[in-house]
Amino acid sequence: MRLLLDAMGGDYAPKSVIEGAILAKEELSSDVQIVLIGDKDSILSELALNNLSEDSFEIIPSEGVIEMNDHPAKAFSKKPNSSISMAFNLLKNKKVDAFCSAGNTGAMLVGSMLSIKAIEGVIRPGIASFIPNEKTGNFILLLDAGANADCKPDVLAQFGQLGSIYSQFVMGVEKPRIGLMNLGEEEQKGTPTTQAAYQLLKLNENINFIGNIEGKDCFNDKVDVIVCDGFTGNVILKMAESFYNLVQSRNIEDDFFNLFNYEEIGGSPILGVNGTVVIGHGASTPKAIKNMIKMTHQQAANHINSKIKESLYV
Amino acid sequence: MRLLLDAMGGDYAPKSVIEGAILAKEELSSDVQIVLIGDKDSILSELALNNLSEDSFEIIPSEGVIEMNDHPAKAFSKKPNSSISMAFNLLKNKKVDAFCSAGNTGAMLVGSMLSIKAIEGVIRPGIASFIPNEKTGNFILLLDAGANADCKPDVLAQFGQLGSIYSQFVMGVEKPRIGLMNLGEEEQKGTPTTQAAYQLLKLNENINFIGNIEGKDCFNDKVDVIVCDGFTGNVILKMAESFYNLVQSRNIEDDFFNLFNYEEIGGSPILGVNGTVVIGHGASTPKAIKNMIKMTHQQAANHINSKIKESLYV
Repeated sequence: MRLLLDAMGGDYAPKSVIEGAILAKEELSSDVQIVLIGDKDSILSELALNNLSEDSFEIIPSEGVIEMNDHPAKAFSKKPNSSISMAFNLLKNKKVDAFCSAGNTGAMLVGSMLSIKAIEGVIRPGIASFIPNEKTGNFILLLDAGANADCKPDVLAQFGQLGSIYSQFVMGVEKPRIGLMNLGEEEQKGTPTTQAAYQLLKLNENINFIGNIEGKDCFNDKVDVIVCDGFTGNVILKMAESFYNLVQSRNIEDDFFNLFNYEEIGGSPILGVNGTVVIGHGASTPKAIKNMIKMTHQQAANHINSKIKESLYV
Repeated sequence: MRLLLDAMGGDYAPKSVIEGAILAKEELSSDVQIVLIGDKDSILSELALNNLSEDSFEIIPSEGVIEMNDHPAKAFSKKPNSSISMAFNLLKNKKVDAFCSAGNTGAMLVGSMLSIKAIEGVIRPGIASFIPNEKTGNFILLLDAGANADCKPDVLAQFGQLGSIYSQFVMGVEKPRIGLMNLGEEEQKGTPTTQAAYQLLKLNENINFIGNIEGKDCFNDKVDVIVCDGFTGNVILKMAESFYNLVQSRNIEDDFFNLFNYEEIGGSPILGVNGTVVIGHGASTPKAIKNMIKMTHQQAANHINSKIKESLYV
């Protein structure tokens, strides 16, 4: 298996990325190959700083970088030889099995939609993210984390199905409990959109829909997958991030709160596209990059996209 | 000034309510009168338990209670002599200056809309709630906390104005900073609704709109008023509540985290109706009831509704 890693992605690239790749290589089995894409000279000098030779990683040279403030849609035509632009071509042409980057999130999303495209039958791909579960110390999947600010009921309902497959086949949850984020538990609560999504989720026999959940259920063990629109998901994740910062700034040491650290997870997969694509945090440290690579491997190794296709075409 | 208090409202009524009224009376000046409405015998026996005579509070007898699970809209015709039903008649007929209850939130909202009604020009009244500000130790006003799940742009924009007036005249903030909850800071971010609301807020010269804020800005000192729809507001408040519970269950003692305790605030005012109405937490303790009464007094004493009318009709 060949995992393509954007050596130029993230605020501390290429240094953090190369160091993360080295850490990941030590933990992954030898049949998994990490391929670096980026400015060859920079990559080589980082490898040299780590006492590694030129052939310790396969390197695909690229030119230029899609920066954080570049317009996602325009970046591909303006910078066709940048690491992200070239990476999506390689992924599309099956030269690599997966791609991950801590670079421009919008470009990762646009690149996925334009090159490998949405899986047929997927209305809107979503970005998955992870919230720590206080009872188990594992993570709860949240979908969508911000790719689709507004979502129609059928999109929300499909997120339930995509999330269920990821939870089952990547996270190992046998019968994932799916919950719809709402402002009350009762079936009739919420906006017309969540009310309709509730009915669609209830009708879907492929998933274990347990009903509405509320903001207070984010960290408890009520569900394995939280379904919400990208607006709500974004607010939830950023608020959780601020909780972690509040705890950190008070020097509170607690195993559960430590799980809020994005480094522990490393990345957010784009679910519903024809390939494995994982987005890392802009401020990724080597540890975060390592975990992003491991997540990418985990997702590709479990053939999530085939599972999604099967679930849609049955 | 006569403040009407629902002696039957809340999970621990009338005991907690009466005890809270006694605490509040000690702190309010003698020209503020707390009037109790509820089952007279129950009130009298609670007063006796506190070694207080029959004439320590004015008592308005009512019959029956709108329970937490009663349908808000139907409750008024089914239970016309209940404490909440009678209270809204008294408020409408100006027999009292304000009304507060820790009872059925939906009934408080419906009662406000049907009896005293929305202020002319207010598109949709909202429920305000409060989030602690880490820098100042004061509170940030959040509007809407759940009265209107879906909000059109003009409603969101008006929440900015209602919130600004409350922040200025009740909370004493000189030039309240108004922020729109969104999934990014940039002007063009968000849903079509938040994008349009942004433009309306920007055009409003009566308020100090500082732009979009994100989930991570809930507790920092970036704004004095958070504008959002009731769906988002509800998720934020319940998530903050769960965070407080996480901290509590770990026996972490911290002055800032203690401000998350709803008892410190006591209530949520309904903004934009022709009267002062404050809703308490169902699980209200005597301390929470005391603070709800003090908030009700504060709001009535500062003539917020006149200020809202002036701001709309200028």
